[in-house]
Amino acid sequence: MVSGRQVESGQGPIRYGMVGGGQGAFIGAVHRLAARMDGEFELVAGALSSDPARAKASAAELGLDPERSYASFSEMAKAEAKRPDGIEAVAIVTPNNVHYPAAKAFLEAGIHVICDKPLTSNLADAKKLAALVGKSGKLFILTHNYTAYPMVRQARDMVARGVLGDIRVVQAEYPQDWLTDPIEQTGQKQAAWRTDPKQSGAGGASGDIGTHAYNLARFVSGLELAELSADLDAFVPGRKVDDNLNVLLRFKPAGKAPAAKGMIWASQVAPGHENGLKLRIYGTKGGLEWVQADPNYLWYTPFGQPKQLITRAGAGASQVAARLTRVPSGHPEGYLEGFANLYQEAARAIRAARRKGGKPPKDVIYPTVQDGVEGVAFVEACVKSSKKNGAWTKL
Amino acid sequence: MVSGRQVESGQGPIRYGMVGGGQGAFIGAVHRLAARMDGEFELVAGALSSDPARAKASAAELGLDPERSYASFSEMAKAEAKRPDGIEAVAIVTPNNVHYPAAKAFLEAGIHVICDKPLTSNLADAKKLAALVGKSGKLFILTHNYTAYPMVRQARDMVARGVLGDIRVVQAEYPQDWLTDPIEQTGQKQAAWRTDPKQSGAGGASGDIGTHAYNLARFVSGLELAELSADLDAFVPGRKVDDNLNVLLRFKPAGKAPAAKGMIWASQVAPGHENGLKLRIYGTKGGLEWVQADPNYLWYTPFGQPKQLITRAGAGASQVAARLTRVPSGHPEGYLEGFANLYQEAARAIRAARRKGGKPPKDVIYPTVQDGVEGVAFVEACVKSSKKNGAWTKL
Amino acid sequence: MVSGRQVESGQGPIRYGMVGGGQGAFIGAVHRLAARMDGEFELVAGALSSDPARAKASAAELGLDPERSYASFSEMAKAEAKRPDGIEAVAIVTPNNVHYPAAKAFLEAGIHVICDKPLTSNLADAKKLAALVGKSGKLFILTHNYTAYPMVRQARDMVARGVLGDIRVVQAEYPQDWLTDPIEQTGQKQAAWRTDPKQSGAGGASGDIGTHAYNLARFVSGLELAELSADLDAFVPGRKVDDNLNVLLRFKPAGKAPAAKGMIWASQVAPGHENGLKLRIYGTKGGLEWVQADPNYLWYTPFGQPKQLITRAGAGASQVAARLTRVPSGHPEGYLEGFANLYQEAARAIRAARRKGGKPPKDVIYPTVQDGVEGVAFVEACVKSSKKNGAWTKL
Amino acid sequence: MVSGRQVESGQGPIRYGMVGGGQGAFIGAVHRLAARMDGEFELVAGALSSDPARAKASAAELGLDPERSYASFSEMAKAEAKRPDGIEAVAIVTPNNVHYPAAKAFLEAGIHVICDKPLTSNLADAKKLAALVGKSGKLFILTHNYTAYPMVRQARDMVARGVLGDIRVVQAEYPQDWLTDPIEQTGQKQAAWRTDPKQSGAGGASGDIGTHAYNLARFVSGLELAELSADLDAFVPGRKVDDNLNVLLRFKPAGKAPAAKGMIWASQVAPGHENGLKLRIYGTKGGLEWVQADPNYLWYTPFGQPKQLITRAGAGASQVAARLTRVPSGHPEGYLEGFANLYQEAARAIRAARRKGGKPPKDVIYPTVQDGVEGVAFVEACVKSSKKNGAWTKL
Repeated sequence: MVSGRQVESGQGPIRYGMVGGGQGAFIGAVHRLAARMDGEFELVAGALSSDPARAKASAAELGLDPERSYASFSEMAKAEAKRPDGIEAVAIVTPNNVHYPAAKAFLEAGIHVICDKPLTSNLADAKKLAALVGKSGKLFILTHNYTAYPMVRQARDMVARGVLGDIRVVQAEYPQDWLTDPIEQTGQKQAAWRTDPKQSGAGGASGDIGTHAYNLARFVSGLELAELSADLDAFVPGRKVDDNLNVLLRFKPAGKAPAAKGMIWASQVAPGHENGLKLRIYGTKGGLEWVQADPNYLWYTPFGQPKQLITRAGAGASQVAARLTRVPSGHPEGYLEGFANLYQEAARAIRAARRKGGKPPKDVIYPTVQDGVEGVAFVEACVKSSKKNGAWTKL
Repeated sequence: MVSGRQVESGQGPIRYGMVGGGQGAFIGAVHRLAARMDGEFELVAGALSSDPARAKASAAELGLDPERSYASFSEMAKAEAKRPDGIEAVAIVTPNNVHYPAAKAFLEAGIHVICDKPLTSNLADAKKLAALVGKSGKLFILTHNYTAYPMVRQARDMVARGVLGDIRVVQAEYPQDWLTDPIEQTGQKQAAWRTDPKQSGAGGASGDIGTHAYNLARFVSGLELAELSADLDAFVPGRKVDDNLNVLLRFKPAGKAPAAKGMIWASQVAPGHENGLKLRIYGTKGGLEWVQADPNYLWYTPFGQPKQLITRAGAGASQVAARLTRVPSGHPEGYLEGFANLYQEAARAIRAARRKGGKPPKDVIYPTVQDGVEGVAFVEACVKSSKKNGAWTKL
Repeated sequence: MVSGRQVESGQGPIRYGMVGGGQGAFIGAVHRLAARMDGEFELVAGALSSDPARAKASAAELGLDPERSYASFSEMAKAEAKRPDGIEAVAIVTPNNVHYPAAKAFLEAGIHVICDKPLTSNLADAKKLAALVGKSGKLFILTHNYTAYPMVRQARDMVARGVLGDIRVVQAEYPQDWLTDPIEQTGQKQAAWRTDPKQSGAGGASGDIGTHAYNLARFVSGLELAELSADLDAFVPGRKVDDNLNVLLRFKPAGKAPAAKGMIWASQVAPGHENGLKLRIYGTKGGLEWVQADPNYLWYTPFGQPKQLITRAGAGASQVAARLTRVPSGHPEGYLEGFANLYQEAARAIRAARRKGGKPPKDVIYPTVQDGVEGVAFVEACVKSSKKNGAWTKL
Repeated sequence: MVSGRQVESGQGPIRYGMVGGGQGAFIGAVHRLAARMDGEFELVAGALSSDPARAKASAAELGLDPERSYASFSEMAKAEAKRPDGIEAVAIVTPNNVHYPAAKAFLEAGIHVICDKPLTSNLADAKKLAALVGKSGKLFILTHNYTAYPMVRQARDMVARGVLGDIRVVQAEYPQDWLTDPIEQTGQKQAAWRTDPKQSGAGGASGDIGTHAYNLARFVSGLELAELSADLDAFVPGRKVDDNLNVLLRFKPAGKAPAAKGMIWASQVAPGHENGLKLRIYGTKGGLEWVQADPNYLWYTPFGQPKQLITRAGAGASQVAARLTRVPSGHPEGYLEGFANLYQEAARAIRAARRKGGKPPKDVIYPTVQDGVEGVAFVEACVKSSKKNGAWTKL
């Protein structure tokens, strides 16, 4: 009944800054809390809003040194790069269309980037960004946070070790209900930018949550996508982007077994679902089921044996899960701990990078800029397929 | 805490016969038990197997009068039609390909038909059978048994009353795992005929369980299908029919709201799923979720209000559910009670028909031959669409 | 995916009669349905109500031969004993206080008795009845129906086989909410007799549901009670019997391990609970949990291993469960099937008894008159202990 | 979909120190993480272990200034009291027997105390400590952390507002399984001190988890205890303190309704239970159920209406829950967030106290030293009652 890992490293925190995340934002506060949870990061700079007054007020509220509260990300990148105590990493938590220019500025300034998903608002930017990352030699961590839940890691490990046999079927879904009504027309900030194609990109639900479902399916199954067929809808009158997507997936064959098939359903108009990300995978030897709202549980159903409920930090949980666990079994961990796990991984990678030429330990895992490119490609393929009446489309 | 309905009618049982359902069969025993549960039917004749020895032994085991144990359904139809105490109805529980000729024989003999699903093994037969039913003036009850669960009736009624608002999304799934391995090659009787296209028709999982999922989605939502796109697989080496189907659905518009969309996933190779039929429906005002394995519960999620768990015979259960309820809330009813409900409906219809020109009471509901035609059309559309790489296909 | 057992025996039904169970009754209809489910019994006689008009009307509704509808159980016992086609067994489903005289009449007439619980309304009657049964040589089956659920049988078998190791803790509970308000004052028939000490005996909830919880705990654990301490309440103003009981249990040592301890909570005033019978047992090697409302599931939690969910007819279900199973896993069975299992056991015992000196097969299990005596002793011990401020009391 | 509250206050963190919580400890790391989560506290001093080498190493690992790593709590209290930048509060996370002397030292040094439960290892110390707190004018926060879960607050508020009507029944349980085997004999540190009466006090499970269950029942129901009857066991051979407790509760009447009754079951030897704290409360109008392992859900069962599942931050969650919520509904919060909520409350109280004569805002709620006295009295009453064969005992 002791903690599965050491939660403090004693090495002194990593200095980081934030772009976006000012007052009224959601995900910025989540990033800050995740960064703070294990004492590995210290927020020292920010360009917290494109609105100067809000930026200033937000910085004051967070106790930032006023001279390190910047009016723009470009100013911040330049200024921080010059400081001897400048930030080592930046967290980009803006609307999607700002990800690319902001990331570019910091990479060019030699600063590691932690960036929210989807990577960018269009595929062209995504590819340019991937090239920039390669050239920069800097770390780029994309916060597909759900990949860092302990039981997701356990699931991935079980698949990789062949526990399920050959994978046949992958079912991912991500229903929500918060956009059931056209609240973007009432000035709700979260809704407004997410349904504005200029800020979000061509995809609505597909970009906001479809990418999470797709990324999770790929992350756990280890399978690569061959092609998809998508049927997108904007059910709410006046909505400019999709709020529901039904997608068929065909994976590439892995070995000699028949190629796996899958489905993704993501929706923002499904009353009763708050944040219903769920993944199910079935192979020749068994199945797995994981539900984000109850993340401490993993159902493992070996074919021909009783169903097993594996619990985080409980019997049956493996080392890959234990490494990202803070409290004993039965003491539930949640969304913020999962998110913080990704910041833990980032911290380990950044600390390794501090040592000249240092590479992250082999067991450090985080979504990369390449995963981000694939995510944006997924969104664009969905939109394209749907426009072509569901034609099978490659990423 | 009293029973919601009168379980015995006191009018004397309906005499019925059975085609199929001999030793080693599954669904025949279910029909007999369902027929017997409420004391409304009496089994008095049978052509229980195409194998004469098995037919005879099965009849003896069931205590049938030996002279009413027939070697074939055609013999049975003729002989029973002549008897003053002949059967009023027949239950057809054979492999799919026998449904049509058997039903034809009894309809032509003036005997009501209760028939297992899918209606026939091909669409041509289905249409001919529908025409025959119309001409015969006899009743035809298709045992899509899941439609008779009380909470399914409640769900349907709630949708019809507009409780969910305009329907946007329908998600149906029916995963099982019993065909994960090629057990049809080991002589397992249930598996053998279900995977033999000559007996089952062109669809495997699509005919056996996909039709149930489709029928249930239609039954509860009240929506009509416009077209579908299907991706079928036979994952198990050597299997001749599909064992997994991923289907996109487009419904016809109902009113001025955008047309609803849906998905069906059915599988016989999903380890951990025993009989996982599940239906979820979402509208502008709320959602519903029902799971066959736990049939006494119905989740109702009005948008913007706490989730509600409605229980069979409990608070919130309506009259349409109460009519098909035998025991108080908290005393679970199951699969057999649901099946027996359909026999109850059949009994009410048959008793009404006894009176010359008698029509069933208005609240009697059962799947008809038209539903059966649509079910077979669904299977054939799935197979056709899948062969055409998922082309959108009308029924 | 075939039925686990033969549901029809082909031997011709057992003729039985019923005392009580007329119009407006609950448990009588349940008994009839349970008796009918497997085709093993035929209802041919009845003294269905102490009210002659209701008795007659009830008999007509059930299609009984009018001359076998009796005005009293004593008349019925005498008349049926004389008939060559007289009943072989009687089901007694009256209020508790009638169990003893009715059972006495039929035992003395040489007729097997199936009797609802609790055995009698007081311990003196219970003991006299046990003596009568012994003297009569007739079968006596007490319908503690919950003991016949397949997963309860499985649990019992696992405990007996030592799967849990030495038992340490037994937790049983049986909350309901139907008597939250004083509905006995409104003429609700079920409530009226259950809260009238003249008809129910000294115990209210303790007799009606506490006995079920106690019986189940004993049945599954195999442990014998040493003593109990009870705190009973009648929370509803004006109620004459207990509607909530909190009980501490001390079991006798089984072997060298420390004696097990337990608790029973039963309530009729716990809003939200419909019929919440639940049993949990913990030993040195593992635990078990079973919930009546979801009876197809059994949680098995081996210490130090993942939790296992065993499903009726699924992987992990043993032969003792399979014998009492009608449909494949995932096709839920419920309260009526569980009840019918007890009638199955009764049928097997009665058929064996038909053969002179015939004893039931060894695997036939049903609650006996001795279990009934113990149940009434439990009720009286609860009442006595509670009156003595919770003094530890032996049965 | 925005965060329910402001997670950062911008006022500069509260300086605090820690007693206990060195390497190998469990709850110390939890306190630190909880303190850090919202950026309200900064750890600047510690007497982290009674073992000087471990204290030093632990301090280094946490990055403490070496001169503020103390060899004893008394040294620390004196030294910090003298510093202009001395700690404002101390977190005491030692074995129970050290709580009293450590708290005394800091209170006398004018430093606020945050102390783990149970308050002390015996009632005499508890009462002395309460007196000291009163005299000191300092804040004393007892970390009965479960009281700070949002849905627990919601439950409490619903009871207080009369939503359940008059309370009749309270059922609390807290089963675990980690002490099923005698691991205290293997040197497992957590087990060793918890089963050593010199360090833990007279109660084992009763002090470690029974107090939590009791405190939670009191906190949510608002009822006061009249007396209890307890049956304690040490099932594991050689164990010196109880590892299982069965307790009957009688509450004092609240108003004119009959006094409520209750039960507590707590166990450390119940295989399958990881940390199974659960509370159920039933009144004349409805019931509530909350389970710690799934803390984002609260079942509310109004009598005669469908069951409602209220979710943290979802529809139906009230302001008292929203104030302690960080992320939107469907994004699960867990044990650490619940614990951090208590540190939030502490922060608000301490910030108010900074202002001369400042009192905490009225909505700040935390367990006090008086709750702690009652908790220790509960343990001693359990032990005393059990020794007297379950005699009813007042606190």
